[in-house]
Amino acid sequence: MNNLEELQHFLNKGYLEYRRNLTVDCTIFGYHDGELQILLMKNKIVPVWCLPGGYARNDESLDRAATRITAERTGIENLFLNQFKTFGNPGRSAHNGNVDTQKLFELVEVSEETGNWFSGETASVGYYAITDIINARPNADFLSSECQWFSVNNLPKLGFDHDEIVREALLSMRMHLYHFPIGKNLLQQKFTLKEIRQFYEVMSGKELNASNFPNKLISLGLIVKLDEKRNIGAHRSPTYYKFDEETYENALKEGLVLA
Amino acid sequence: MNNLEELQHFLNKGYLEYRRNLTVDCTIFGYHDGELQILLMKNKIVPVWCLPGGYARNDESLDRAATRITAERTGIENLFLNQFKTFGNPGRSAHNGNVDTQKLFELVEVSEETGNWFSGETASVGYYAITDIINARPNADFLSSECQWFSVNNLPKLGFDHDEIVREALLSMRMHLYHFPIGKNLLQQKFTLKEIRQFYEVMSGKELNASNFPNKLISLGLIVKLDEKRNIGAHRSPTYYKFDEETYENALKEGLVLA
Repeated sequence: MNNLEELQHFLNKGYLEYRRNLTVDCTIFGYHDGELQILLMKNKIVPVWCLPGGYARNDESLDRAATRITAERTGIENLFLNQFKTFGNPGRSAHNGNVDTQKLFELVEVSEETGNWFSGETASVGYYAITDIINARPNADFLSSECQWFSVNNLPKLGFDHDEIVREALLSMRMHLYHFPIGKNLLQQKFTLKEIRQFYEVMSGKELNASNFPNKLISLGLIVKLDEKRNIGAHRSPTYYKFDEETYENALKEGLVLA
Repeated sequence: MNNLEELQHFLNKGYLEYRRNLTVDCTIFGYHDGELQILLMKNKIVPVWCLPGGYARNDESLDRAATRITAERTGIENLFLNQFKTFGNPGRSAHNGNVDTQKLFELVEVSEETGNWFSGETASVGYYAITDIINARPNADFLSSECQWFSVNNLPKLGFDHDEIVREALLSMRMHLYHFPIGKNLLQQKFTLKEIRQFYEVMSGKELNASNFPNKLISLGLIVKLDEKRNIGAHRSPTYYKFDEETYENALKEGLVLA
């Protein structure tokens, strides 16, 4: 919800356009210079930090809903998204019961007849995206007071079941590291083996066997050596590598096994 | 729906107990003696083969709904289940529009007022399970005329978007082969290296490098050599192996990397 008018329409007439009791929540990972962060919003009605999310429309796919929501919150169209799990434990949206309705009614006029169409158990489809932090322009929605990055190693306590959603997003993203290429648009166009190894260490959250991932990437032709070295001293001039576009795109489609 | 009474209650009063527009569909893999099959049901109302599935109740988790549905269709309680993807493209439940209502009304009395509470776009949460075929007693529900196993290599055309669901279930199960142990309750308690290699070939749908999986399983302590050989001839007496319970259960919880 980006403004008062949209919110008012949603609360009163949303049942005509949105799927009942089905939302999308997005774990947007931001990587830059060796740090992995997550984009969170502070809700005005339930004053806790939460993942960006929203209801899915009847006329859009779940993927499209996630694309719309991440574009609104980051300013980036067509972020690469992965659906990873749907959350539907009874009571997971229990904060609904604790919503400060006075506060809601101060913000927006709601008709009693239609304004509760979205009450009841709500399941949420979890997506994750990964972007370079410098490409994103975090943008709070109308119901949020703040929208900012937090290090994955220092997250605040999140509302609803969003702690669990983030935990599962990390697990899935880390499993996918072994089956899909990653790094384009996150690393510089040219990088050293040390840089790509450090990138994988940060993404996987652990010290990797120093050469495992880079060696496998080389042997599968996903990264190729350039005829150029970084000049950082007499005995230290590591060679540059870059991603091979075609192999990379094929592997994104077909999947692979890196380990 | 197991009988007329349940179906009648569901159609007329289901909105009180079930989540609107959210179902669970289960790809139940059956393995036995080197063949991988899938359990399908022939629907009476829309006469096509479909995956077992049903609506999720308000008071149960999605996992619990999948457990309930697979137990009803296979006779096995507590099948090991994996949620893999939620399907929500607009129009995916379009067969709803083609339902033979005459046929439905022949089977069951529906009040016009309440009998359409489940119309509209419905998303479905996909789960897969794996069982030994000999442990299952396939059991059609009230709205299905048949319930039987089909080889994954020779599936009929499925209704709704269930072809896509099966394709994604296979992709996910095959990715999980690299991260979770599998085979207990599917292989005999004692097996040879050749048998477990063949098992992995069938599950992954391709000829694997003969020794990759078994060797990795040995090096991680997931399978251990027994002091016993199969006697099948003078120069052919392969050693038996078995799963190590503790390592297996830990790996199921923690995940691992096999490749």
